[in-house]
Amino acid sequence: MNIRAIVSHSPENDEARFCMEDIVLRETQGNELLVEIVASGICSTDLFFAHAAGGELGPFPRVLGHEGVGWVRAIGREVTVAAVGDAVSLSFASCTKCKACISFHPAYCHKFSAVNYGASAAYQRAGGEDLSGYFFGQSSFANYSNVLQESVVNISKWVDTEQDMYNYAALGCSFQSGSATVTKLASVGTEDSVVIMGLGAVGLSAIMAAKIQECSIIIGVDRFESRLQLARDLGATHVINTIEAGHDIAAAVKSITSGTGSTVTIDATGFMPLIKSGLDFTANKGKMIFLGVPPLDAEMNLNVVRFMATGKSILGSMEGDAIPSEHIPCMIDWFKSGKFPINRLVRTYKAEEFKLAMTDMKSGLTIKPVLVWK
Amino acid sequence: MNIRAIVSHSPENDEARFCMEDIVLRETQGNELLVEIVASGICSTDLFFAHAAGGELGPFPRVLGHEGVGWVRAIGREVTVAAVGDAVSLSFASCTKCKACISFHPAYCHKFSAVNYGASAAYQRAGGEDLSGYFFGQSSFANYSNVLQESVVNISKWVDTEQDMYNYAALGCSFQSGSATVTKLASVGTEDSVVIMGLGAVGLSAIMAAKIQECSIIIGVDRFESRLQLARDLGATHVINTIEAGHDIAAAVKSITSGTGSTVTIDATGFMPLIKSGLDFTANKGKMIFLGVPPLDAEMNLNVVRFMATGKSILGSMEGDAIPSEHIPCMIDWFKSGKFPINRLVRTYKAEEFKLAMTDMKSGLTIKPVLVWK
Repeated sequence: MNIRAIVSHSPENDEARFCMEDIVLRETQGNELLVEIVASGICSTDLFFAHAAGGELGPFPRVLGHEGVGWVRAIGREVTVAAVGDAVSLSFASCTKCKACISFHPAYCHKFSAVNYGASAAYQRAGGEDLSGYFFGQSSFANYSNVLQESVVNISKWVDTEQDMYNYAALGCSFQSGSATVTKLASVGTEDSVVIMGLGAVGLSAIMAAKIQECSIIIGVDRFESRLQLARDLGATHVINTIEAGHDIAAAVKSITSGTGSTVTIDATGFMPLIKSGLDFTANKGKMIFLGVPPLDAEMNLNVVRFMATGKSILGSMEGDAIPSEHIPCMIDWFKSGKFPINRLVRTYKAEEFKLAMTDMKSGLTIKPVLVWK
Repeated sequence: MNIRAIVSHSPENDEARFCMEDIVLRETQGNELLVEIVASGICSTDLFFAHAAGGELGPFPRVLGHEGVGWVRAIGREVTVAAVGDAVSLSFASCTKCKACISFHPAYCHKFSAVNYGASAAYQRAGGEDLSGYFFGQSSFANYSNVLQESVVNISKWVDTEQDMYNYAALGCSFQSGSATVTKLASVGTEDSVVIMGLGAVGLSAIMAAKIQECSIIIGVDRFESRLQLARDLGATHVINTIEAGHDIAAAVKSITSGTGSTVTIDATGFMPLIKSGLDFTANKGKMIFLGVPPLDAEMNLNVVRFMATGKSILGSMEGDAIPSEHIPCMIDWFKSGKFPINRLVRTYKAEEFKLAMTDMKSGLTIKPVLVWK
């Protein structure tokens, strides 16, 4: 089958990181669904993987994209999650068999890297050349893709308009990661004082989720005034501009929380100085959660004795510890009832405009670019 | 009032770290109880504080001791926790007013150091010289002490014999820290695979608590065969001798847990190589808990990205996050019903034999030395 896809070639050539190409998709197999992609979200993880090589990351060229929605056009014999004609949301894959998967923590699957980044199975060809797919089990940067059943959530019940599909495009990763980190991993309540650092699609989803949970204090931290204003609109009770605060975020947070600090601190920046400051201003018995991805070699040096006495806990969020088949319908429900206005974060682009979309994301102009495939 | 106490002088003189002396106790004040100490447990924290100076640690000479039981002989006007004639167990103090205290986490009191180690209020005199007391609100290395109400748990209902008092002497710290770390802080269940490193009074209390919680796998780790045997008797399903394992504890734990690792790892050694290994063999989504105290400058260098993907959490245990007025009666109940045989860990010494008791603790001959004051 002839399809169009954004192909990432060898990372050595900057121009070849993302190229729209006509390629051939092989036949849909037993555990796969052929999905006609309606819209794909772009996430900074895609930009990262366009120049990450080695280890479990599979060979180039590869088709990236790990947020998407579409219509099922064919299914393999083993597929039970959806039927031809269903609308589906695409999320991450998991092995379904390891201890983490069987105990309902698929985002911490022991084979997460191999299953989501590995993609060594070449299933697309252009002029005889193999291309890697299966990125997060989906490779949604294409107008059609063979998607692993494990990555699929059936959302047929909740699609009323084409616009719904665009709004749902990023449910599978950004919106899920941000909101589930708040509601599931941190499991916040009304008594909590939550700090969210970095107000992109992930951080703003976390703000909305904290409001849904009715946290008493919700502090958004960013360097762009427009993001801070949006965070206020979406539920932040306080905001801190890192530039105005002279990077002394700790003092600002302590001041807002009457000297106690935040009970939950979520970093969605991956910026180590902020992360270290975050651990510092987290209250005794509070949680410091790593959600943004810092450089691969970034280290946190923890003084054990001082840390012990605080009772703080440090934990990492992968997709907010969400189970997509539960959390995606939950987010849609919030959205439909007006509590999770993700439409305010989404801007659509024609798929051909993907370079503009990426530029706008990097410059901060667009929070969540969504590529529309037809 | 003339009393006897083990006084710790300036840490510069090895011989003067612990000296039995006759000193004078000032009158009992509003929030204090005059307690006739029956028995005091010795803990390695006492040995540490006999040569720790500076900061919030208060001046020398000081009276240490932070585990004890006794009879109330007088009370200040503000005291409601016990009456004259009651039996009491002595535990840590807390400020009762900070966010941690009012949210039922007194062991993470924001003023823990000041309240428990500070002890600048000199309340004992010898020939005109001031001595610091109030160590953990109690300074139990004496035959009488003025104890802060916050450190007191009334145990009158559960004392049937003098031997009960000896067994209860270390409930306030060692036995509480080990067991509450398992039952409250880690909140383990039958599905958990628990590793406990370091099988002193704290680690063995953790083993007993894990058995009470019916954890499916309980692995004791130590270098002394006698401790490993005792751990087996007390509930360990598996043991690892660090010397025999060639320090490759990770391989041994993985082998016992079918490759998954432990869901809860508790370090009661404070030995950094073991702690680092412990984080390594903890399963995805598992908890790594620091309970033993490493050197004050010890650091844990955490690779953030690798850590995030595992979903492991790191947290420090102070007294197992216990509320003494709840946990001490709970431990006594376990003890009376045969599930928490702390009598197997205790060896009594006359108070005058404190140097022998400390030597036996350091050599490993005695697990929990208890000084009897008359």
